[in-house]
Amino acid sequence: MKVAIYLPDEKTQAWWVEMLEELLPGWTIEPIDAVSDPAEITYGVVWRPRPGDLARFPNLRAIVSIGAGIDHVLDDPDLPRDVPIIRTVGRDLTQRMREYVALHVLRHHRDMPRQLQAQAERDWHSIVVPVAPNRVVGVLGLGNLGAAAARTLAGLGFDTRGWARTEKEIDGVTTFAGADGLPAFLSGCEILVNLLPLTEETRGILDADLLGQLAEGACVINCARGPHLVDDDLLAALESGQIKQATLDVFHQEPLPGDHAFWSHPGITVTPHVASRIDAGTGARIIAENLKSFETTGTCADLADASRGY
Amino acid sequence: MKVAIYLPDEKTQAWWVEMLEELLPGWTIEPIDAVSDPAEITYGVVWRPRPGDLARFPNLRAIVSIGAGIDHVLDDPDLPRDVPIIRTVGRDLTQRMREYVALHVLRHHRDMPRQLQAQAERDWHSIVVPVAPNRVVGVLGLGNLGAAAARTLAGLGFDTRGWARTEKEIDGVTTFAGADGLPAFLSGCEILVNLLPLTEETRGILDADLLGQLAEGACVINCARGPHLVDDDLLAALESGQIKQATLDVFHQEPLPGDHAFWSHPGITVTPHVASRIDAGTGARIIAENLKSFETTGTCADLADASRGY
Repeated sequence: MKVAIYLPDEKTQAWWVEMLEELLPGWTIEPIDAVSDPAEITYGVVWRPRPGDLARFPNLRAIVSIGAGIDHVLDDPDLPRDVPIIRTVGRDLTQRMREYVALHVLRHHRDMPRQLQAQAERDWHSIVVPVAPNRVVGVLGLGNLGAAAARTLAGLGFDTRGWARTEKEIDGVTTFAGADGLPAFLSGCEILVNLLPLTEETRGILDADLLGQLAEGACVINCARGPHLVDDDLLAALESGQIKQATLDVFHQEPLPGDHAFWSHPGITVTPHVASRIDAGTGARIIAENLKSFETTGTCADLADASRGY
Repeated sequence: MKVAIYLPDEKTQAWWVEMLEELLPGWTIEPIDAVSDPAEITYGVVWRPRPGDLARFPNLRAIVSIGAGIDHVLDDPDLPRDVPIIRTVGRDLTQRMREYVALHVLRHHRDMPRQLQAQAERDWHSIVVPVAPNRVVGVLGLGNLGAAAARTLAGLGFDTRGWARTEKEIDGVTTFAGADGLPAFLSGCEILVNLLPLTEETRGILDADLLGQLAEGACVINCARGPHLVDDDLLAALESGQIKQATLDVFHQEPLPGDHAFWSHPGITVTPHVASRIDAGTGARIIAENLKSFETTGTCADLADASRGY
């Protein structure tokens, strides 16, 4: 079996080649630009492949996304659409996302931005907030990460809602489904967490219309993908007071350009796409297991559904 | 039954008189300075009573602390030492403390102070931190609040330790007890949360010696009482790098004086004694129930042990 690897950063790519060689004895692992015979490549392991990268391999059996999302693979207009895509989801990825969501929901819940402002002014000012059971938080998207985040928020005591395209059941979480369920999910929601997959249906979903349906003065946390958000609609909602604060981990362009309005907006916390990450060592082990399983059985646990987009 | 009430803030005191009158029909509720006949007072309900306030009542059956700690009552040198003290602990108090501890442990765990600094510099700088299961956090004090905090941290995935004067068992938490267990508890501990009661034994416990036993670059969160901490020892430990960051909710003097070094220290987050509070409505209901129970049975759930100090 021959694997072609592509990651935008050359050093990271070299690390992955070495690691997978160690984890897949007997397999050949090649950097995508050093592939000698494209017809021999049976697997592609990629993060943000360049357009046409994967179309070069006529005998590809599966493509592995180094990450939970597959949008960065589907973005390739020349992608061979009939090749299965394997996502990479590990315990660490879920754990880190739970931490990020808990941290930022609590930050907004307890109004830390204003508390830190008071400290800067040496102002002994106590901000009175409701207890978590009286605070409505909502998670958009109930896949691996969204469901784990919703469970964590419910465990912290929040009045937790979740929304997904299709019906889901999660202990301690009030769930809503489909376009019909969205208005009820949004109504009264005070802190919104976006963990949707990026698909044609969800692109731009965080727009003026959706933000306007949240509770007045709501907070928004986007830790899914930048294109879920209509940047100007968020800025307008912050300006009007409909949205009080936002925490953004993902952006249309990453790194976020130095002159972007988000950097210095007093209502926006910017984190540099760090909400979650697969530890490279753990990720490589998961990918090696998935490849071995797919090679032997023709399937594996984290197979994505490209037609659905995630 | 006649109850005398004292709170330092007159308006708050008036509110408590009114609320307890409503919740305890048939009882007489009087502001402490308006008591007509001290011999008739059978209960004192107080927050930070003035020295001598309670000694005036020869027929006191019990004293109620409006709060979980009783140190503010024991501080009175003239306190009638044989009168039982009833603490006020409610679900809200525990809930709010869980939120505060989770928020601030996560803030230090994910190094939000440095992340916010990076944002201020428009620096797309990802800070790599271990996942919570590889992060050792410790809770000093395993009473109602400490145990709830430790459980919450374990639920978030942290490698959680707890220490108390006597042996305690908490699912998912490694516990240590007594002076003999303290060094092992502190060794390797990366984020320390103090939730000890304030007693003669614990006053000044957060000193150079204790801070020096934590992991290098540890973070400290004090949400118990100001006098647990030796302020100058913390400043020295921050200066040396032994402590990286601290979050302080309580202080020797509150409000924290405007010229105190903590306000503007880059390694210190100051919050104005807001970690937890009893919602007044809930607190009044709990106190009324405790008083009725004590009056009928001579005891109640939240009786403190004054000889132990909490």
